[in-house]
Amino acid sequence: MKIAPKLTLEDARLMMTAAEKKAVEIGVDMDIAIVDDGGHLLLFQRMDNARITSITIAIDKAFTAAAARKSTRAYGEVSGPGQPAFGINTSIGGRFMIFAGGLPIFIDDQPVGGIGCSSGSPGQDEEVAQAGLDALLGSL
Amino acid sequence: MKIAPKLTLEDARLMMTAAEKKAVEIGVDMDIAIVDDGGHLLLFQRMDNARITSITIAIDKAFTAAAARKSTRAYGEVSGPGQPAFGINTSIGGRFMIFAGGLPIFIDDQPVGGIGCSSGSPGQDEEVAQAGLDALLGSL
Amino acid sequence: MKIAPKLTLEDARLMMTAAEKKAVEIGVDMDIAIVDDGGHLLLFQRMDNARITSITIAIDKAFTAAAARKSTRAYGEVSGPGQPAFGINTSIGGRFMIFAGGLPIFIDDQPVGGIGCSSGSPGQDEEVAQAGLDALLGSL
Amino acid sequence: MKIAPKLTLEDARLMMTAAEKKAVEIGVDMDIAIVDDGGHLLLFQRMDNARITSITIAIDKAFTAAAARKSTRAYGEVSGPGQPAFGINTSIGGRFMIFAGGLPIFIDDQPVGGIGCSSGSPGQDEEVAQAGLDALLGSL
Repeated sequence: MKIAPKLTLEDARLMMTAAEKKAVEIGVDMDIAIVDDGGHLLLFQRMDNARITSITIAIDKAFTAAAARKSTRAYGEVSGPGQPAFGINTSIGGRFMIFAGGLPIFIDDQPVGGIGCSSGSPGQDEEVAQAGLDALLGSL
Repeated sequence: MKIAPKLTLEDARLMMTAAEKKAVEIGVDMDIAIVDDGGHLLLFQRMDNARITSITIAIDKAFTAAAARKSTRAYGEVSGPGQPAFGINTSIGGRFMIFAGGLPIFIDDQPVGGIGCSSGSPGQDEEVAQAGLDALLGSL
Repeated sequence: MKIAPKLTLEDARLMMTAAEKKAVEIGVDMDIAIVDDGGHLLLFQRMDNARITSITIAIDKAFTAAAARKSTRAYGEVSGPGQPAFGINTSIGGRFMIFAGGLPIFIDDQPVGGIGCSSGSPGQDEEVAQAGLDALLGSL
Repeated sequence: MKIAPKLTLEDARLMMTAAEKKAVEIGVDMDIAIVDDGGHLLLFQRMDNARITSITIAIDKAFTAAAARKSTRAYGEVSGPGQPAFGINTSIGGRFMIFAGGLPIFIDDQPVGGIGCSSGSPGQDEEVAQAGLDALLGSL
């Protein structure tokens, strides 16, 4: 048996508030998803002008980051033709996301979840996800 | 072209707050989902002790109620063996929910979305969904 | 080699016009789908107040009727608990429809397609499908 | 609550007629799909020599354009190896289309739907979609 930290809904709300604030700051309405250590949805919101396609993409970015314990951007960097993870994006029924915007959440080196954002450029998506992550880590 | 009312994230938040309050009141942590008129997710939260299986069930109850424009309980009443809609629950990739907890949202007789709850008994799920719906309708 | 009749887009339009007329007559906006002998979509329309869930259901009723060469109602009659086709509705990824509203199209005893309707009661759905079928058969 | 324009079946028919006319003019039978702002099918037709594979492709191009609010061609331009959206085509169960032929429909800067065409070259597909879009915009 071991003891591990677990994200609460309150933690997820703190992250969501900070991520939304950043999205407003950069002027891009986003779909924002926060998942637990099992990759399962804890909290989600779609801002009024965010894309409908980005609902699933945000949730799957959060899932991928949490469950693979790595940023989705990092997977993109090794998934091009000829690279070692080429084709990984079609795995898990197409849920494995390989472009920026999904970040894993670690507490005391333990994986506890992920945050995924979508609707902007991948760079903007990651910036908003990072703001959510920073808020959580800063609160500990 | 016609003009129709659309739910905003702010509307969804108002519903979520009221639904959560009811869930706390009856002592059952819930998964709660609110979707737009296309059945697409606007807002979701999982309370700390809510079921993981209920994430998808809550989202699909909200989807079914919004997109079929009827409560999921009403479908259950006509889907038993020998009844006219027997088998409808396996349609749409199994997303069509036929037990209580999903309610459509109508504004001025126009369908604008749905709310779906899961983790309690179907009766409790519907009670929490109804609290969310009442809050929205009461605010107009 | 054999020679077989094939539905054209013009045939499908003739069916659609008659089905829509019947839907208007009974006062229920419908999703109406017409497929070819391979079960593949030829023509589809959603009337303004028809259900979103019924898009897939109408298409899958037409598919089932065309590809199984029997009305979807006929399958419902043998798919209850203890009956020979119990459980068939979960086959083909859940596309196999077992409630009324899907009719096969036969020309000279050859299967050439199907028509599927959804948004009303199953009985109304079948009535609208029948009107489409009758128009085609009456035109030959 | 906000108020937004919605496509009607009549709007979709106007688009379909113009798109078909263009397809006839360039001599390529097409699958043509028109969806609402939620990406849900409103109207579809397959011309007699159009491809069966293109049924789903046309529907998914319309879905992608409507729900992502951008042309499918524009996504193709940023989805090659080494580009920021590489891998986006496998998202949403593989429905995310990244080659030309899907166009979003905006009315007064509000996203109201999409049109998707398939069976010709991607350039021809987009030309036919554009003809449908132009007819709607010209009618307002």
